[in-house]
Amino acid sequence: MLAKLIIMKYDANQLKITEVQKSKIEEINFDNLVFGEIFTDHMFTCDYEDGTWKNPEIKPYGSIELDPSTKVFHYGQAVFEGMKAYKDDKDQIWLFRPQQNFERINKSGARLAMPEFPKEYFFKGLEELLKLDKEWIKKGFGNSLYIRPFVIATEECVSASPSTKYKFMIICSPAQAYYSGEVRVQFSEKYSRAANGGVGAAKAAGNYAAQFYPTNLAQEAGFQQIIWTDANTHEFLEEAGTMNIFFRIGDKLVTAPTSDRILDGVTRKSVIDLAKDMNIEVEIRRVKVAEIVDAARSGELKEIFGSGTATVINPIVGFGYKNEKFELPKLEDSYGKAFKDTLMKIQYNQAEDKYGWRYQVK
Amino acid sequence: MLAKLIIMKYDANQLKITEVQKSKIEEINFDNLVFGEIFTDHMFTCDYEDGTWKNPEIKPYGSIELDPSTKVFHYGQAVFEGMKAYKDDKDQIWLFRPQQNFERINKSGARLAMPEFPKEYFFKGLEELLKLDKEWIKKGFGNSLYIRPFVIATEECVSASPSTKYKFMIICSPAQAYYSGEVRVQFSEKYSRAANGGVGAAKAAGNYAAQFYPTNLAQEAGFQQIIWTDANTHEFLEEAGTMNIFFRIGDKLVTAPTSDRILDGVTRKSVIDLAKDMNIEVEIRRVKVAEIVDAARSGELKEIFGSGTATVINPIVGFGYKNEKFELPKLEDSYGKAFKDTLMKIQYNQAEDKYGWRYQVK
Repeated sequence: MLAKLIIMKYDANQLKITEVQKSKIEEINFDNLVFGEIFTDHMFTCDYEDGTWKNPEIKPYGSIELDPSTKVFHYGQAVFEGMKAYKDDKDQIWLFRPQQNFERINKSGARLAMPEFPKEYFFKGLEELLKLDKEWIKKGFGNSLYIRPFVIATEECVSASPSTKYKFMIICSPAQAYYSGEVRVQFSEKYSRAANGGVGAAKAAGNYAAQFYPTNLAQEAGFQQIIWTDANTHEFLEEAGTMNIFFRIGDKLVTAPTSDRILDGVTRKSVIDLAKDMNIEVEIRRVKVAEIVDAARSGELKEIFGSGTATVINPIVGFGYKNEKFELPKLEDSYGKAFKDTLMKIQYNQAEDKYGWRYQVK
Repeated sequence: MLAKLIIMKYDANQLKITEVQKSKIEEINFDNLVFGEIFTDHMFTCDYEDGTWKNPEIKPYGSIELDPSTKVFHYGQAVFEGMKAYKDDKDQIWLFRPQQNFERINKSGARLAMPEFPKEYFFKGLEELLKLDKEWIKKGFGNSLYIRPFVIATEECVSASPSTKYKFMIICSPAQAYYSGEVRVQFSEKYSRAANGGVGAAKAAGNYAAQFYPTNLAQEAGFQQIIWTDANTHEFLEEAGTMNIFFRIGDKLVTAPTSDRILDGVTRKSVIDLAKDMNIEVEIRRVKVAEIVDAARSGELKEIFGSGTATVINPIVGFGYKNEKFELPKLEDSYGKAFKDTLMKIQYNQAEDKYGWRYQVK
C-alpha cells in the first residue's frame, strides 16, 4: 500500500504540457552556434513546496520572476547536470547513460541539503521535452542538443539556512561539434577548486564561480584551462573543473580516483570501461605532479586528455608548471582519439552498444 | 583630466529614484519579525554591461525577471555583504564601518572574477535608500535595519566562464534584537567549509550552501552550529560560517588569523581593537582543537563567542567534539557581554566613538 502511495505521489501523467504557438527554430543559424546561448522552444519546470515536488510542467521557454531575496542569489544553493541528446540517420533520438545524470543530480543536491527529485518526473519531463523539441536535434556526427537540468533554491528569505522551496528546470541548447582550439593547461600551484570534506564531488554552482579568477590568470599566462591539484600540498593532479583528466605514460593510462573533491564523471567512467575492453591498462590512483613532469622530460608522457559531456574527449597539447612549459608529441595512435571515436559511435547509434549505455527517447 | 573623466563615469547624481505610491509599512508587525523575511518599500539596483556599471536606480521593491540560462543559477557567481542601520533617540541614522563592507564586497567579487563596484554608487545608493525607507528603522536598543548588498551574474548563457553582465542590488529587512536561543557548537571532524587557495575568505554565495548539509547533521546531534576546522587536518579551529570565533582561556582571548579560508569579519576586527583598549590580551594565532578541549577539561576555558553582523556577539554555551560534550561556565565578567555592550552603544550613538566607526546617514 505504501509503495502504491509513493508511486501515486509522483505520477508522471501529472505532467502538464503547453506548446508554443510558433516555433522560433527558423530564426536560428545552426551552422554558427555559440555554445550555450540559444535555447529551444520549450522548458521543463517543477516546484518544491510544502515538502513535495509539484506542478511538473513543460511550457514555452521564457523568463522566470524571482524576488531579490530568493536564496539562490545569496547562498548559492544550486546544482546542475550536463547531458546531450543525439539523432541518428533514422531520426531516432538517443541519450547517453541518463540514469547516471539523474542519480548524480540527486547526489549533488543531497550534499547541498536539497530534496531528492523524483525519477518519474525527471525522465518523463526530459523525454517529453525532447520529443516536443526534436527538430532542434540535428543529425550529423558532432551535432547534438545540450541538456541542462538544474535546481535552484527559491525561498524568499535571506536567513542562511536551507531553502524550503526549490525549482527544478530542464533547458536545452543546440550544439555543434565542440572544438576549443589547441588546449594547453596549467597545473595549479596556489589556487584550489575543492577541500577535503567540501563539495567538490557535487555539481554545485559555487564550484564553478570559484574557478573563474584563477582560470583568468592562467589564460593571461597563455593557458586555456587549469588542472587542479590537491588543496593541501598541490602535489597531486585532480581534475580540470569541467573535465576529468587522463595521463598516458608509455602505453598505460593513469587517472585520479574520485573522492569528495573530484567529480565522478560519466565520460570518465565510460573511458575506463572502454580502456579495459581495448586492453589498455588503466591505473586509478593519485597522480603526482612530479611524476608527470618527469615523464614529460623523459618522453614517456604520450598524451593528456580531458573527459566530459561537452567535449567528450578533449586532447591537451601542452602544460605548464612553475614557469616551465611542456609540449606533448603528436601521436598516430592517440588513445584519446580512439576513445572519442568509439564513444561517439555509440552515442550516435553507429556502433554496437554492448554496455547498454544508449537510451532511446521514443 | 583623467581623474575628472573617471569621476564623471560614475557620477552619483545619475541615480534615478522612483518612490512607491503607498508604503506597505502599516501592514508590518514590528514586534514579531522573523529575520530576513520582510523587506522595505524600496531597493537599489545597478547593472553591469558592456564593461561598465550603468542605470543606478532606487525603485519599489519587487521581483526581477531572469532567463533560465542566467549564469548565477548555474555557476554561483554571486557575492554579498551584511550590514545594519541603527536609529538613535534623535532619529539620526547610523551605519557601522560601512567602508569595510564596501571594500569587502569588491574583494569578494574580485576572487570570483566579478567587476569592481564603484564607491560613488555604493554609498549614494545605500544612503538614499536608507533615507527613503527611514521609517523602517525602528528606535530602541537591538532594533535595526539589516542591509543586504549583493551582486549576481546575469549573462544569459550556460558556458562555464565569467559572466559579462551583472546586477548589483541592495535590499533591506527590519530586524529585532537577535536571540537564537542557547547556542552549542560542534567542532567539525569530517566536513569542511573552505580549501587553501579557495574562496573561503570571500562572502561568496556557494560557501553558504556548502555548509547546510553538515549543519543539518550537527543539528540532528543537538548542536546549533558548526565551528569549522581546517580541511587538511581538522586539528585547527577556524570560523563558524556566519561568525568568527573567539576563545577565552583564563583571561586571554584567542582567535584564528584571517586567511584565504577565513572571512575577515568587521565585528571580529572591532572586537580585537576593543580588547586592546580594555587591556585584554588577544592572541591571533592558529587555535588547536586539542588546546580548547584540554582547557575545557581543566576549567581554563571560560568563554567561546562568535562575532558577526547579524548577532554582534553570540555567546556559545557548550561544544561537542568526537562524541564528547562540554558545557561552559556561566560568567559574571563575560568578555562577550562587555564587547557586545560596548559595540552596541557605539552603534546606537550612546557612547563616544573614539575609533570613528560610526557613519551618519544624512
